[in-house]
Amino acid sequence: MGPGPIDADPRVLAAMSRPLIGQFDPAMTGLMERTMALYRGVFRTANEATLVVDGTSRAGIEACLVSLLRPGDPVLVLVMGRFGHLLKEIAERCGATVRTVEVPWGGVVPAEAVEEAILRKRPVLVATVQGDTSTTMNQPLADLGEVCRRHDVLLYADVTASIGGNPLELDAWGVDVASAGLQKCLAGPPGSAPVSLSGRAVERVRSRHSVEAGIQGAGLDDELPPEERIRSNYFDLGMVLDYWGPLRLNHHTEATSMLYAAFECARILLEEGVDAAVERHRLHGAAMAAGLRGLGLSTYGDDAHRMHNVVGVHIPDGVDADAVRADLLAGHGIEIGTSFGPLHGRIWRIGTMGYNAREDAVLRTLDSLEAVLSSHGVAVPTGGGTDAAVETYGR
Amino acid sequence: MGPGPIDADPRVLAAMSRPLIGQFDPAMTGLMERTMALYRGVFRTANEATLVVDGTSRAGIEACLVSLLRPGDPVLVLVMGRFGHLLKEIAERCGATVRTVEVPWGGVVPAEAVEEAILRKRPVLVATVQGDTSTTMNQPLADLGEVCRRHDVLLYADVTASIGGNPLELDAWGVDVASAGLQKCLAGPPGSAPVSLSGRAVERVRSRHSVEAGIQGAGLDDELPPEERIRSNYFDLGMVLDYWGPLRLNHHTEATSMLYAAFECARILLEEGVDAAVERHRLHGAAMAAGLRGLGLSTYGDDAHRMHNVVGVHIPDGVDADAVRADLLAGHGIEIGTSFGPLHGRIWRIGTMGYNAREDAVLRTLDSLEAVLSSHGVAVPTGGGTDAAVETYGR
Repeated sequence: MGPGPIDADPRVLAAMSRPLIGQFDPAMTGLMERTMALYRGVFRTANEATLVVDGTSRAGIEACLVSLLRPGDPVLVLVMGRFGHLLKEIAERCGATVRTVEVPWGGVVPAEAVEEAILRKRPVLVATVQGDTSTTMNQPLADLGEVCRRHDVLLYADVTASIGGNPLELDAWGVDVASAGLQKCLAGPPGSAPVSLSGRAVERVRSRHSVEAGIQGAGLDDELPPEERIRSNYFDLGMVLDYWGPLRLNHHTEATSMLYAAFECARILLEEGVDAAVERHRLHGAAMAAGLRGLGLSTYGDDAHRMHNVVGVHIPDGVDADAVRADLLAGHGIEIGTSFGPLHGRIWRIGTMGYNAREDAVLRTLDSLEAVLSSHGVAVPTGGGTDAAVETYGR
Repeated sequence: MGPGPIDADPRVLAAMSRPLIGQFDPAMTGLMERTMALYRGVFRTANEATLVVDGTSRAGIEACLVSLLRPGDPVLVLVMGRFGHLLKEIAERCGATVRTVEVPWGGVVPAEAVEEAILRKRPVLVATVQGDTSTTMNQPLADLGEVCRRHDVLLYADVTASIGGNPLELDAWGVDVASAGLQKCLAGPPGSAPVSLSGRAVERVRSRHSVEAGIQGAGLDDELPPEERIRSNYFDLGMVLDYWGPLRLNHHTEATSMLYAAFECARILLEEGVDAAVERHRLHGAAMAAGLRGLGLSTYGDDAHRMHNVVGVHIPDGVDADAVRADLLAGHGIEIGTSFGPLHGRIWRIGTMGYNAREDAVLRTLDSLEAVLSSHGVAVPTGGGTDAAVETYGR
């Protein structure tokens, strides 16, 4: 019940034990096609360039940024927590000229501040996270998309922590590029990063298109000088697109078992329906937050912009925060998280996401937390957590 | 029965369906420790810095090169096939100044040629593949290690296709850095890249040590200017080492299910014994090669340096090579490969690796290939393949 990775759906675990198939077996290329189609549904997009990068969600971020940004390109990064800092750092390592719009941890960035920075800095790309688990905040994207379109700037969002549990509409909101992971609301393991790129983003990636020397021939020779190429081979989304597309040019060897997982995660989500899954996360997230308040804890951050699937609570004064977490894990089999940087040791983060966004998981967590807090000398109202949660459930 | 990925060992498939655990759960960090220890046995090294990179084998290559090479660093790359070209390209994208020693596809690079090039080019690193599946050749490494040590140059080898099926002794041979994958002789799925770095390699990586901004604090602040940092965050092995090491600084979220796979692959190999596994690959590879010759096909490349686990055969004149492969797959459930670049459509590559390095798999493949070739009008001696293989097995 932490901020992720979470328990995977048993269907996803089962999918990963399927026998491997060869990477150019029609069964494999067919599965890749079907996975692309499913993730268009998950991202709510018609983007042809929708696929998975073989690595954790951070690999998806880096693939998008290094493929989109040339050295020296001005980029504007929104920083409202740890993962904004991460985007900044990755963009810097791509050689881009990075400017930031920062807000204190616990808030979100107003679209007006972004527009003003666009006018001053003229970036080619605005980069942000949607849900930053370090602060539990959910950055509104629709207004940003509108601003970016108006000023002809690409918008990239890392939606790893939010997708499937909070509203996300790539096309309707004008988000050009998004990258995700399976290990949050998609109920899968870390290690596969779904990404989607709009036509204009693909055009930008393709402007540095190259073909690997060892597979050249048949008119596929590469004339791009080395210094012009995208700075990474593994994360060169032009090459990855050539592998996932009709050319089927060999690049990496697609991570078969993780592809099975990504496929099954999307299938489960779309069977439930994206809107229904978002509503489920809203409901159980609200019940968890109410329950925590019912235990006398205070929630962290701007209530108007909290993510559905993770909530931060201030650690009560005088409590050994790590000992509480250890007791929860050892005595109750429940993991919760602390946070990073300025919030380390100041808040606990409790997730209700993916397969764990369920009433029994919420109630059991509140019950266990009550017992552990009590054993640590914190005065907690008996049944205060579960009562408040049950009330949220309308009973 | 292609050049990989291959059928995974059922034990590895089963391991991937185990429930996930949190990334800082003592069960998880303990598993990471045990995986490091197992891979020291697999690589035959005492290197503390032995772990897995979350991505396919190409991710392991890039992690090693981008972490070791600064822009402008001179590097010497051995090119004897497609994957030498890949190393060259990745090193170029790291900004290194790349020089190559090339030999025609089908041969290996003599240590003398490497020494001569070291003296002329003064590289900081020599990079090579051990087994290049595109040509089926196995580059001798012991002499290279000796030469590199003598001239105080780091030696990096990509051992993805060779490890577990061909002799490899990191420490005894003086190989500083190696990266691998699971999907060949280790009998696992693609998507996890074991790597190992010697002390002097780690020192080089650590010279650009940095800490992510979002998790700074507690004396871990980072003073390295952005332009000095390793060019990738995801592949920054200094950060990956801080995550796998006692500091347990959060970096990516370790790909739990792939870690289970990597762990199980190593356990299976060490239970059999590395030497026994190498001998098994030698035996079944020899039987396959003999069987192919028994079918009247001629094997490709320098016999003295062929890998144990994959053999190339010249495609007979006038045969529709892709139709033969399609018939083998559709009618017999057996996949074999063609090759890349200059060898595309000229040779088939047939693997005997990992879980598929078994007598029944060898005999069934030869039997099926005989039937399909015959149906395509190739005059093949009846039972010539299986007879020759059985003779190799000593019966």
